[in-house]
Amino acid sequence: VQVNALTVQQALETALAKILQRRVRVTASGRTDSGVHALGQVGSFVAETSLSPDQLKRALNGSLPTDIRVRSVEEACPGFHAIRDARKKRYRYVMSDAEQLDVFERRYVWHVWMALDVAAMRDAAGCLVGKHDFASFQAAGSGRASSIRTILDLTLERDPTAHHRIVFEVEADGFLYNMVRNILGSLVLVGRGAKPIGWLAEVLRAKDRKLAGPTAPAHGLTLLRVDY
Amino acid sequence: VQVNALTVQQALETALAKILQRRVRVTASGRTDSGVHALGQVGSFVAETSLSPDQLKRALNGSLPTDIRVRSVEEACPGFHAIRDARKKRYRYVMSDAEQLDVFERRYVWHVWMALDVAAMRDAAGCLVGKHDFASFQAAGSGRASSIRTILDLTLERDPTAHHRIVFEVEADGFLYNMVRNILGSLVLVGRGAKPIGWLAEVLRAKDRKLAGPTAPAHGLTLLRVDY
Repeated sequence: VQVNALTVQQALETALAKILQRRVRVTASGRTDSGVHALGQVGSFVAETSLSPDQLKRALNGSLPTDIRVRSVEEACPGFHAIRDARKKRYRYVMSDAEQLDVFERRYVWHVWMALDVAAMRDAAGCLVGKHDFASFQAAGSGRASSIRTILDLTLERDPTAHHRIVFEVEADGFLYNMVRNILGSLVLVGRGAKPIGWLAEVLRAKDRKLAGPTAPAHGLTLLRVDY
Repeated sequence: VQVNALTVQQALETALAKILQRRVRVTASGRTDSGVHALGQVGSFVAETSLSPDQLKRALNGSLPTDIRVRSVEEACPGFHAIRDARKKRYRYVMSDAEQLDVFERRYVWHVWMALDVAAMRDAAGCLVGKHDFASFQAAGSGRASSIRTILDLTLERDPTAHHRIVFEVEADGFLYNMVRNILGSLVLVGRGAKPIGWLAEVLRAKDRKLAGPTAPAHGLTLLRVDY
């Protein structure tokens, strides 16, 4: 919820208020920055209603704007909390090193104006998998209690049907603020040849945000899934 | 060029006027309706300039809005005309029969709210290939001299990586007004089981727009290519 912009949370709460005739607060699994997309965001709320989960889903999709869809409504155990109970999350980040921007991709793909060495980026990223202190990739001043997270899966590949599209996916038990975008900004330095493959492991070990690359733009990032 | 809407042609002419310091009229290979997309539209214009084609391309992309890109600028033979000299065009139309609309597809894919029998649609569409009078699929009152066109290629397949997406492509020596959208609107009646496979051939033979199905929405259609 923001004062000056219509957020997904506000749209959901407005639709729920209309359907349930009372004010309902929605808790999402986490915040996504402006420009970041979501295919599988999860939100929880408490409501008394005679509607079945499926009826509620249809009512919500009937009153939400067309750029927000509820894919599923399920009854949760008492005390379920969308942030606290999340076990893992999966994000996708898409880059392009095409010579020219594709207008249909401009809001979903980070266009990098140099050919990227994807094999080098993949080799560099290998060091991130597992349990590490990701302080180097945490936005300055975000101050979480611990910056230790476990990356469970990480893939980086060119799209076989559109070779210029480079698709990065990462799954972890949790993410620090801007962590995916900071990893990507650093990986692109390796892909462009500005940094050697081993540099990323050094950055990780240093636990110093100042040593990592710049933050990749928000619009290439999509929250794919949250598991509970 | 329209009075009440900013068109691609207007944007191009504005950018060209800025670069060339004089009013230039752009002729496109054909009109695309509002909501229709283009990956490979071709436009021609006459201009005296010391800029190379590639310099002109870069200057245009520097002043056009980001949802319009010039992919290539080439010098044409004297007398070249983007409409008259077109030998063939290729269009793509994308439908989805997913249970739920994907928000990222909402401006590019026609969402049909019923499972479609793609094999039946493909069989039905077979009769369209070749040289025929397509009067049944021409928008009423468009009054071209002849409604005879030759369909050179036609494919209809589910996207192997996203099974709910049904991709139709068609190439012809020319298209009547709304021809692709009218063919699709009819094919979907076959795909839904509302009409038998042989019905499309009957509609084609009848040369009567009233017998064909409704016009499919514009936003599923993309002009892929124009050949000269």
